[in-house]
Amino acid sequence: MAGVSEATVSRVLNNVGPMREETKQKVIEAAEILGYYPNAIAQSFARRRSGNLGVILPYVPKVHIFSTYYFSEILNGIGEQVRELGYDMLLIFRKPGYENGYIDLFRSQKVDACILLGTTDTPEERKALKALEEAGHPFCLVNQHFEGEHFLEVDADHEQGAYEAVKHLLDEGYRKIAFLNGPPEYSNSLDRLKGYVRAMTEAGLFNPDKSITEAVPPEWLNTGNYSRTSGYEAASRFFCNKDQIDAVFAANDRMAIGLMQGFRDLGVLPGKDIAIAGYDDSDGARITDPPLTSVAVPFYQMGMMAAKLLLSDSESEDSEVDGASDHRQQVQLGTKLIVRSSSKGNQA
Amino acid sequence: MAGVSEATVSRVLNNVGPMREETKQKVIEAAEILGYYPNAIAQSFARRRSGNLGVILPYVPKVHIFSTYYFSEILNGIGEQVRELGYDMLLIFRKPGYENGYIDLFRSQKVDACILLGTTDTPEERKALKALEEAGHPFCLVNQHFEGEHFLEVDADHEQGAYEAVKHLLDEGYRKIAFLNGPPEYSNSLDRLKGYVRAMTEAGLFNPDKSITEAVPPEWLNTGNYSRTSGYEAASRFFCNKDQIDAVFAANDRMAIGLMQGFRDLGVLPGKDIAIAGYDDSDGARITDPPLTSVAVPFYQMGMMAAKLLLSDSESEDSEVDGASDHRQQVQLGTKLIVRSSSKGNQA
Repeated sequence: MAGVSEATVSRVLNNVGPMREETKQKVIEAAEILGYYPNAIAQSFARRRSGNLGVILPYVPKVHIFSTYYFSEILNGIGEQVRELGYDMLLIFRKPGYENGYIDLFRSQKVDACILLGTTDTPEERKALKALEEAGHPFCLVNQHFEGEHFLEVDADHEQGAYEAVKHLLDEGYRKIAFLNGPPEYSNSLDRLKGYVRAMTEAGLFNPDKSITEAVPPEWLNTGNYSRTSGYEAASRFFCNKDQIDAVFAANDRMAIGLMQGFRDLGVLPGKDIAIAGYDDSDGARITDPPLTSVAVPFYQMGMMAAKLLLSDSESEDSEVDGASDHRQQVQLGTKLIVRSSSKGNQA
Repeated sequence: MAGVSEATVSRVLNNVGPMREETKQKVIEAAEILGYYPNAIAQSFARRRSGNLGVILPYVPKVHIFSTYYFSEILNGIGEQVRELGYDMLLIFRKPGYENGYIDLFRSQKVDACILLGTTDTPEERKALKALEEAGHPFCLVNQHFEGEHFLEVDADHEQGAYEAVKHLLDEGYRKIAFLNGPPEYSNSLDRLKGYVRAMTEAGLFNPDKSITEAVPPEWLNTGNYSRTSGYEAASRFFCNKDQIDAVFAANDRMAIGLMQGFRDLGVLPGKDIAIAGYDDSDGARITDPPLTSVAVPFYQMGMMAAKLLLSDSESEDSEVDGASDHRQQVQLGTKLIVRSSSKGNQA
């Protein structure tokens, strides 16, 4: 009907390969007459546009993800940007092993671009992300860095954030400062470990010749999973060495809050018998007793920026001849220490 | 190529009208050879399935919607159900006047079904919802009732919830009980007004012969917009009549918390000089000073139920010959009064 070959029809409707605008129009007109009236799916079919920004959420059983300060703030930021740019947000609740499905999201045109939250540095994840990159599908990581890769990332300077929190504890007169970190598969856990070790080493407390993992005395290092419960449980482990510990820096507020509850139940008063500092500056930090010293991270801005980088990126791609865009950026925003009474020295 | 007419091709690919399975297969096979390889869009094109449950969010400028207890809990519930059933959740940030776009969401097959949050009872909204209903597009309202319609709804018994809160204040010995309500476009505002009036009438404080709007003395009724700020501002209006008021029931916790701050700034101590009760039993209710008496609403369950009703509804539709499903249900869940010290009588 359009007077062109079947292969050309296929190319036009799948928007693959080069073709003359005139040919494209002929095919599209014929398709419309044949019943492909221009509804949004037919349009997206031709234009390769869903109008959706995908957001892949991590698998966290039993956690109310929208009630978590960390995720809700990032989602607020993404939502604000998505709304401004006229997109919708497709939330994808990943299941274990889901990374194999990333590429299908793009192939099936469910999303034009994708933000991944709560990814971990595993071989499977790296492989899936590299496949996305090679296929030219735009995606962005928030608060997670893959060393050696050049993925689009919006991160915060967690090494400096942790450094400042520990430096503050040192300035308040504490010396026996333990660290409750999150799982090492998150780059931000590793960043905080680096900041902790740097501050302790500068203060002459850690051996500068040792590697980062060897520098920390084992009784000063514990690992939780960023949940309140894991913080609560860590309290009793720290308690076994309570004479060798006068402060704990926790890698997020939820663990810090659990830690405070745990210590209190053991008869150790947070802010009095032991100093506590958290991380994230969540709403919870303001309402604990005593209020919790924490490190503010601009999660809202990080979410906005990730959406903006992606959606402007995917729009500019359209206007390029070969689509070989290379706008890849790795953004790192600053953090800010917020001092409250949980870390104030009572060391008269 | 399939040996059928163009009209049949159109019917098959748009999934319109009756046709033999054999014909359908022929067309689909030909389409595949011609380049419609079976990707998800092509499949959804034929099957009329997006795999997405749409959630339309209200337009609330400046509010971090995911950080709001009310919305985050409903979304947690929807998310849980969506994940279980293997769907994705498409969040749509509505703009003013967006109700005209509801039907396009279905026409363009961006969603298979839709949950509407924070709708208001306006003529435009009613018209848009009736159009959806007539077109047979499955949708569900959460926490909003449209009197006289038979839309699928998951609501809570806010009349009873409000009744119990006010009854509790009466039992504590308060008599001069004011009410800070939300905007009347929300059915749940109206429901709470009914519960308040019923309790006050039963206690012999309101004239049973008067209509609901005439029964309440004007100095006892104020309207906010469910924000903390609007609660804060209401405090000074109630303060003008402070001798005629010894308790305030607020229609949500955020207004109640603003109210407590406002009263405190005016030198009136909540829980001591004035009793306060809120509504929603949000996280905030536990952390105010004094802790806030409130009414717990099962938002999480409501979200889960709305998603379940819709997604099982849309699946069963498939197996019906004429698609004229009539599973419409109006569900109403119970609420629960949680007494804390903000409402304890100091009326020695």
